[in-house]
Amino acid sequence: MTRASTARDLTDIEVIGFDADDTLWVSEDTFHSAEQRFFELLEPHTPDGIDLRAALTATERANLPISGYGVKAFTLSMVQAAVTVSDGRVPADVIGELVGIGHSMLTGPVQLLPHVPEVLAAVGPSYRLVLITKGDLVHQTRKITTSGLEHHFEHVEVVLEKDPETYGRILRHIDVAPERFCMVGNSVRSDILPVIELGAHGVHVPYHLTWEHELVEQHEEEFVELDSLAGLPQLFGGG
Amino acid sequence: MTRASTARDLTDIEVIGFDADDTLWVSEDTFHSAEQRFFELLEPHTPDGIDLRAALTATERANLPISGYGVKAFTLSMVQAAVTVSDGRVPADVIGELVGIGHSMLTGPVQLLPHVPEVLAAVGPSYRLVLITKGDLVHQTRKITTSGLEHHFEHVEVVLEKDPETYGRILRHIDVAPERFCMVGNSVRSDILPVIELGAHGVHVPYHLTWEHELVEQHEEEFVELDSLAGLPQLFGGG
Repeated sequence: MTRASTARDLTDIEVIGFDADDTLWVSEDTFHSAEQRFFELLEPHTPDGIDLRAALTATERANLPISGYGVKAFTLSMVQAAVTVSDGRVPADVIGELVGIGHSMLTGPVQLLPHVPEVLAAVGPSYRLVLITKGDLVHQTRKITTSGLEHHFEHVEVVLEKDPETYGRILRHIDVAPERFCMVGNSVRSDILPVIELGAHGVHVPYHLTWEHELVEQHEEEFVELDSLAGLPQLFGGG
Repeated sequence: MTRASTARDLTDIEVIGFDADDTLWVSEDTFHSAEQRFFELLEPHTPDGIDLRAALTATERANLPISGYGVKAFTLSMVQAAVTVSDGRVPADVIGELVGIGHSMLTGPVQLLPHVPEVLAAVGPSYRLVLITKGDLVHQTRKITTSGLEHHFEHVEVVLEKDPETYGRILRHIDVAPERFCMVGNSVRSDILPVIELGAHGVHVPYHLTWEHELVEQHEEEFVELDSLAGLPQLFGGG
């Protein structure tokens, strides 16, 4: 089911970069479940007329420049929002449970997405593979090392923000020209548009959930879109 | 007031690595103040016979492999310990204040230690300088960019753990042989012993506060110790 929305020339690619969260393994679902539990836990302690989802999202958004992406920042936002929406009446055991949700997210097993090990094994022999992921250094490192996939990658970068400057620095570091680099990921905003701006290539593999922050309204750039990572070896001529 | 405890040969040094927290700027003091405030806030809600310091330290230590170093991990540990030591009775406004302490730490201005800009300006022309710091990616990056010191460094690394493996990877990346690298920092455990293990050099500049986790009982390795960073240019022949 490979649907290539455009047929940009990928024959000169030397390095394939992979996003991690929601490209190689499940991530957004765990945030989604945590939010649902937050709503359940806080609902009895919240006055009528408070939009719990809006309050949590606004807290997360306000904290993003301070705390960045990742589970620890998200957990602190849940705790902060709990105090605020309950007007200071949330019981301590609810706070304890919110911290526990964060710890479970930080220590939970990595759930690989379908086809991931086979796809990496298929393209690995013909391309240099790198992993470029945004988020918390400790948590991302734990996920990478426990995923069983680390040996496929010659280089792993945990970055603060996926912007053209960051990608440019990484491409210089791994010594590859932009036109010979292709990034594969689920976020048009983070994985595709910034690399296209550099003159590199992008392959978008949408995930069923996308964090609101990662959504882009519209774009004019052309890039390949695949229904599933399973189409990748064929796209790169290794399938 | 340069006191060189040994006179290891530093004449072949090409790259000087600097630690950041409590070497270039104040860090441990802010954790110390936060802890004091934690004790004040929790004391009225804690049964007699509970050792607040021991409880907080134990919580931090237990969370270290999960959450790593840094303010977000520390703040989550404060919140978790607050729920535990109060036996689930801590009021939400105290929780809100603990989260606020974390935010203040994350957004507070960088306080440079004495002599830092002059010392970097003195050694910068003759050596390649790199910054190697442990901790949270967002917070360390914010401190580096707002410190006004970033331009002195050809490379900045925020790492998960300062062990020989990590230092080895960085030295390969910046293409310098261990015997031509010298690390400067306040922690014998993190800045000195692992680089000496690699065959590189270390200059220890003690800070008046050392986090318990960074203490080492004893060591046999020989390295240079300076009372103040001000002695560095002279040590490297640039003073």
